[in-house]
Amino acid sequence: MEPAETVNAFITAIEAKDLDTALSLVSDDVEYDNVPIGKVHGPAAIRAVLEPFLAAAREVEWVIERQAAEGHLVFNERRDRFHMRGWVEVAVNGVWEVHDGRITLWRDYFDDASFRRQLAPPP
Amino acid sequence: MEPAETVNAFITAIEAKDLDTALSLVSDDVEYDNVPIGKVHGPAAIRAVLEPFLAAAREVEWVIERQAAEGHLVFNERRDRFHMRGWVEVAVNGVWEVHDGRITLWRDYFDDASFRRQLAPPP
Repeated sequence: MEPAETVNAFITAIEAKDLDTALSLVSDDVEYDNVPIGKVHGPAAIRAVLEPFLAAAREVEWVIERQAAEGHLVFNERRDRFHMRGWVEVAVNGVWEVHDGRITLWRDYFDDASFRRQLAPPP
Repeated sequence: MEPAETVNAFITAIEAKDLDTALSLVSDDVEYDNVPIGKVHGPAAIRAVLEPFLAAAREVEWVIERQAAEGHLVFNERRDRFHMRGWVEVAVNGVWEVHDGRITLWRDYFDDASFRRQLAPPP
């Protein structure tokens, strides 16, 4: 698979809440960096971050707005949408590195406050 | 010029605080979107946003960490550094569209609070 295909397959698996398939596409030492929050390493750490989110969402849609790939790099501008009580959405620009068919870097840039505001309980 | 060359020339001009050259590379209806803050349109609006910043900085360095281009799209992961009292730095992931040698979209994703914290006056 080309790097962009690997990233797209990862995202499709996330939308299906299929973490086993998603994590089969990352390297053992993958870096997962939510820039304003912090980074973790390895598939088990990605699972620990994502599993509660996916479990709390009735539906998950990660919509690709724009995408470019060059060499080992893939960028995707996304709207990551989670159907919780209502839909919450985070506007993300992601940068990925893929080597030998495995994702070695997944780094998302977004505004943390814009996301947390939507997760706050209703007044 | 290829789209990536246009974007790189724009950034080089910004680092030189040469807004005239930078703005010669954008379209009349360019969209400049600082995602967590808001968007403006047109070269004059870009000048109004950037001029005070560039004037306040002794030096400006926008370091490209990663970059990919495909078709009309350019993405660049950057560290935008401004030498104010000390260096302040914003970690940015930008997405650009270039048509006919002119930048029509410049959208930067970053964490607003992380940047503002550095701009706050010392206690």
